[in-house]
This record gives sequence, C-alpha cells and structure tokens, in this order.
Amino acid sequence: MADLHLLSPRGFRAAAVYAGIKSKQTPDVGLLVCEARATVAAVFTRNLVIAAPVKVGRERVADGRLRAVVVNAGNANACTGRQGEKDAYRMCDLAAAALGCETGDVLPSSTGIIGHKLPMEKVERGILDAATRLGDSHEHALLFADAILTTDTKRKAAAASFKVGRETITLAGVCKGSGMIGPRMALPAGGASLRKQAKARPLHATMLAYLTTDAKVPAPLLRNLLSSASDASFNAVTVDDHMSTNDTAALLASGLGPAIDSPRAAANFAAALNEVCQSLAYQIAADGEGATKVVIVHVKGAASDVAAHAMARAIANSPLVKCAMHGNDPNWGRIVSAAGMAGVPFDPDRATLTLQGTVVFRNGQPVDFDPTAVSQSLAATEVKAELSCRMGKSDATVWTCDLSKDYVTINADYHT
Amino acid sequence: MADLHLLSPRGFRAAAVYAGIKSKQTPDVGLLVCEARATVAAVFTRNLVIAAPVKVGRERVADGRLRAVVVNAGNANACTGRQGEKDAYRMCDLAAAALGCETGDVLPSSTGIIGHKLPMEKVERGILDAATRLGDSHEHALLFADAILTTDTKRKAAAASFKVGRETITLAGVCKGSGMIGPRMALPAGGASLRKQAKARPLHATMLAYLTTDAKVPAPLLRNLLSSASDASFNAVTVDDHMSTNDTAALLASGLGPAIDSPRAAANFAAALNEVCQSLAYQIAADGEGATKVVIVHVKGAASDVAAHAMARAIANSPLVKCAMHGNDPNWGRIVSAAGMAGVPFDPDRATLTLQGTVVFRNGQPVDFDPTAVSQSLAATEVKAELSCRMGKSDATVWTCDLSKDYVTINADYHT
Repeated sequence: MADLHLLSPRGFRAAAVYAGIKSKQTPDVGLLVCEARATVAAVFTRNLVIAAPVKVGRERVADGRLRAVVVNAGNANACTGRQGEKDAYRMCDLAAAALGCETGDVLPSSTGIIGHKLPMEKVERGILDAATRLGDSHEHALLFADAILTTDTKRKAAAASFKVGRETITLAGVCKGSGMIGPRMALPAGGASLRKQAKARPLHATMLAYLTTDAKVPAPLLRNLLSSASDASFNAVTVDDHMSTNDTAALLASGLGPAIDSPRAAANFAAALNEVCQSLAYQIAADGEGATKVVIVHVKGAASDVAAHAMARAIANSPLVKCAMHGNDPNWGRIVSAAGMAGVPFDPDRATLTLQGTVVFRNGQPVDFDPTAVSQSLAATEVKAELSCRMGKSDATVWTCDLSKDYVTINADYHT
Repeated sequence: MADLHLLSPRGFRAAAVYAGIKSKQTPDVGLLVCEARATVAAVFTRNLVIAAPVKVGRERVADGRLRAVVVNAGNANACTGRQGEKDAYRMCDLAAAALGCETGDVLPSSTGIIGHKLPMEKVERGILDAATRLGDSHEHALLFADAILTTDTKRKAAAASFKVGRETITLAGVCKGSGMIGPRMALPAGGASLRKQAKARPLHATMLAYLTTDAKVPAPLLRNLLSSASDASFNAVTVDDHMSTNDTAALLASGLGPAIDSPRAAANFAAALNEVCQSLAYQIAADGEGATKVVIVHVKGAASDVAAHAMARAIANSPLVKCAMHGNDPNWGRIVSAAGMAGVPFDPDRATLTLQGTVVFRNGQPVDFDPTAVSQSLAATEVKAELSCRMGKSDATVWTCDLSKDYVTINADYHT
C-alpha cells in the first residue's frame, strides 16, 4: 500500500499553500477537490460548543453531495460569533468561484487557536493561490495532509484497496490530531434539530479526517459505513478526553470506480474503511501531545457494547493509568479500579488483566509476576492492556497514549 | 478556631504510632476512640472495586453505632482477596480487645499501595502500641492526622463550633487525599445490595476523612447531614477524577454535648459540618499531587443541579484546562468547550465566563481583555473560574488543582 495516497482514488485533486496563518512555515490552507460531484458522508463533534465551519459544514453535507473541502490550520474560527460564520461561508464562496462549482458543494474546516477572528486576507489569498496549484500527485496529497496539522509532529495518512470483480476500489485518508482529542462524532441530525444546536465556538486542537474513494456508493449507505467506522476508530481514540468543537471526518466517494452494489462489496468496503480509519486513529494516539507510546486498551467479555466501551474509555482516560504507562509501571490496580468506576456492570472477582501478555490480576486476586520483566515489556512504543470481564460477549478497543511531562509543557505553554 | 482540633469535641481520644508500614518514618497506624458508643454515619466509595476495609466498614456502620476507628497508611489492603478481609477483621478484633469494646463497633480503614497483603505483624504491633498511648491533646490529634497520610505533603484538619442555648457544640475533622482523588461517595445500601457489591480491592491513594462532634444526633439525621455535606465537599473535589476503592468519610457523634433537637439546631449543625467538610475538601485540592494552586470552578444558572455539577466537573477534570491554569494561560476556549461536552443543556450564546473576576467570554463572543493582566491574575495560589449559564437556577462548585509536571513525576515513578 506504500504507494497509495489520498489522491489515488480516481477523481481527486488537492493543493496546499502556506498563507501565513500558522507561525510554523508549513502549509496552512488546503483544497481537496473531486472532479465529479462526489457522494459525501460526514460526522461532526457532538460538543454543544461548535465552530463556525462545523455549523456551516453540517448544512453542506445534508444533501449527500460535495465537490470540495476548503481547510485552514492555525485558527479554529471558533467562538467568533456571527463574523465567524460569515468567514466560513466566505471561504466556501471563494473556493467555489475558483473551482467553478456551487458554494453549497464546498465543506469548510478550520483548526487552530480559538476565539480569534480568521485573518481573512491571508485565508483568501491562500485559497486563490491553492486553486491554481491543484494536482493528483503523491506530493499534492502530502501537502494537503500537512495543511491540516497544528501541534501534530507527524503527517498522518493511510490507504487500502480491494477488488470488485476485476476492478480495484481504492480508499484513502489523511487526518490530524494531537491534543484536545476525545472525539465522539455523529452524523448531523436533521434540519430541525440542527437549528437547535448551539452556535459556533471551539478551541485549539481538534480531530480532522478527510477520506477519499472512487467507489460508487449511495449516500445513505456511505453514511452508515462512515458512522460505524468512526465509532470503531476516531471515536475510540483519546488523548485527553476533551471533545473538540471542530472535530470532523468526511468521506468523499467520487463514484468513478465500481459500484458498491452487493452485500459482499459493502462488506469489503466496510473492511477497507475500518482499516484506513483505525490506522489514522492509531496514528493520532501515537502522536498524542507528549506521547512516547501508544496504549491499546482491550476490554473483552463485557455485559454490553456500551459497558465494554465505557470501561475501556475509563481506563484510557485515567491520568493515573497514563502516568503508570509512561513510567513502565505495572500498576494494575489503577487499571482495575478505573474499570470499577465506569458506571457499568463489572465484577473484579471474574476479571483477568494482562499487561503485554502477562497476567497480573485474576479473579479478584493479585497474581505473582516478575515486576521487572513486565516493566521492561512496558518500555515499548506500543503497549497492550487487556481486561477480560467474563460478564458477557461484548468487546471494545480504545487507543490512547501515555501522559508525560511534555504534555504539560505543551499545554501549559500554548498561549492564547 | 485555631485551638480546636479533632479531639476537642467531648468524648474522643486518639493515638498514632509508626509501625514501619510506610517507608517515610511518620505515623502509619492510628486509633480514634469514643469513650461512649458514638452515633456514626459514613459514606463510602461507589467504585465496584472496593477494598477489604470498605467492605467490612460498611457492615460496621450499618447499626449507626461505633466506638473506634482503626486505620493504617502505606498499604490499602486492596485486591488482596479473602486474606485481605480476614486482615481487616483482625485489625478490628485487635483494636476491640485492646480498647475493651465490641469488634462490631470498630471501623477499619486502610490507604496505600494496592494488591499487597497487609504486613500484619507490623499492623498488630502498631495497634497494640497505639492503644497504650491514647490521649485527647492537640498533639494526639495531630499524630492521628499524620497517620492517615500517604503522598500528601500537608496535614489536613478543620474545626468549627456553634452554640445551642448556652452550650457549645464542636465539630472537627481530619482527612487525607492527594492523588487518586475523584470521590463520589454514598451511604452504604442495605444488606441485600451490600452482598451484591463487588469484593475488596483498590489502589494506592484515596480520600479518607474522620469527623468528630459532641452533639447528640439521631443516626438517620446524622446520615442525611453527612450525605449532603459530602456531596458539597468531598464529592466535589477532583485531582485526577479517579474514584478510589477505599474512599471513606465517617462522622462520629459522641452525644456528650447538646442534642440536635430543633430545626434551627440542625441547620446550625449542617452549616458547621459543611464548613468543616469544605475546608477539608479545599485542603485536598490544594495538596493535590503536583499542585501549585487550587482551581475553584463555579457554575451558575444551570438548568438543574445535575447539569451544574456535570459542567463544573467536566471543566475541573479537563487536562487542558488544568494545564492552562498551571501556565497562567487565560485559554477560556478550553473551559467553555469543556462545559459543552458535559452532556447536559448548555448554550454558549447565553453564557458568560469570568477568570479571576475578569469577563473573558460573553454570549458566545470573545471579550476584549488584557491577556497579560489576566495571566498575572492567574499566577495565584487560588484561581476562580465562573461560568454563568443563564439556563436556570442551579449552581455548583467543584474544587480542583492545576496539572503540573510534578504530577507526572509522582505518578510515573510511584512503583508497584
């Protein structure tokens, strides 16, 4: 898959430029364009405090069709009131004019500092400039991937492909996310409840993901598939459990490839989508602010899916667990007690906990283990904690990272 | 109040000794004894993973009477299986024999490392030794206060008194808590549901509080008053949101002073109890692991008490908010967005946020303020964030602390 990238699926071009919004001189305005009217599905943050581009974006994907995404990094256009909404619309208008499409077919996104008006002169120049530089090369894909980063230290991309008959369907994606990561995104509700949504205003970091495919997929199916894939990937990654006001994941299907018109094709598509989304989610955890390792929390045999996810999330969000993982400390009591505070059925007397494959707790009792050996096994870039509950048949996985002093440095010094 | 202490209320004596359980040579076994059979009310952790002493303790307070508390620090007697329960009972048996009371009138408590059997030889020697050193001096009160500390850097005590007619009622307390602090304690349920509770096993740090009074209070009233006071104090303090398996707060009323037999006396008693509990909760936040300041989160005008508390807690638990407070950064977007993710009604367009008295956000819009001045105002040992919601009439206060690198040091290096 090494050669596949965001623009490998047929019908997509992208561009990104540095417009001077970020202090770091890396691309900060990007365009992702589909040459046809793509089918689109998108999930957005469920925070009641939402950024202007999320508010506008929910409208833009309502009809299931999209031509382009226009994005800036360095400023979240959040808590910016009515002017913020105007600016989000203006970004779309400009992109649409430059690309020769309807403004209603453009999805805006922003990420960066909160509570500051967008520097529209820079943004406008950036959009116009980017529109003249569109291409479908790997280089173009990488530039677009860079244009959505903020405190990220690494570019995040993934791709997969599968066959439908003799034809290949390609699925690819890029994302950003490092801090303020605790997304719980959902498909936008209908118009009525949309109007009830609180207005525009978030924070500084966020999760953004843009996915492309050349499959031809009906919009309702695309929405279902993205919603399921998000729940098992983006919505299962947490760095600091802080749901952002800008979290957005959008999947564009150009329809220039084979149709997803059989249960088997749909299953293959779902598998490829899950693979791409989980890879991206993993990359977010690995690049969590200050992270030195990914911590994979598996909960098995819970009484329900909700219970499994609640326990996995309680463990993954515990600062005590995250610090222990940072210190390679097999302090299993923190993990077991986190499961016990998740507010769902759990009986420690039936539970078994393994750290990196070593059983450390079983049936309510400590297990003799070599703490030095387990500690050494925790000194890895990927650590697995598996809690088997024997309460039922539901499993869940949540990805997180350790909590280091660098997290504090980054977030105590990120000045408004 | 400077002279009032845990043993000021009539009828109480205490002692504490160093028995060698903690590595730090400060007292680690303590006894708190009431010369009469005290009326008792106690609230315990709601974690499903509970320590042996909590399991035993719930039984011991069921009849509303108690003679003594026996406590050790340095070992939580948690996740220690059936042996742990035997050890908790044994602590009570020994204390009862030494004090000449029923073992059923002794409440055991433990705090410290999880998953290790109690060093019973040391504990036993400590209990017998302590029983020979009982006294009611301020010095005795201080020693007992020290005997419950683990990672705490400061002793925690508070007291209040009020008049009933010409007589004085005194109320006093000591507590411990620094890490693994996110208590949500409740009165124990009845026997049937008790048996359904998961068995014994916690962690390392915990919240313990012991309160004394010489008032004569009926047990049902005492339970109600403690439950209410806990909700507005201990259950509203969070360092890391990690509910411990050992959290316990017990209030002993010797009955040697005036009776609480009028609504007015009950109100005065409630006020004094709240004052003592809130002072102790504040001291826990101030001594949170790695803390450099207390952060007081006030939510006003929420739609319900549940909503007010949920928003205050979401703000107080956000690592991003806590890091911003550590860095004196008026990063109000983190606070507003934390309220928006609490899962309760909130409309940022109606909300106003003040930091140290300066309005930084109003009605969904940023407010021009001097960031340098506000940052300077945040460089204090006590910081107030007040979110006014205009959604209803409910208020809530949660106490927390900032998140510093020292928190990471303490918890990444606290080895099992």
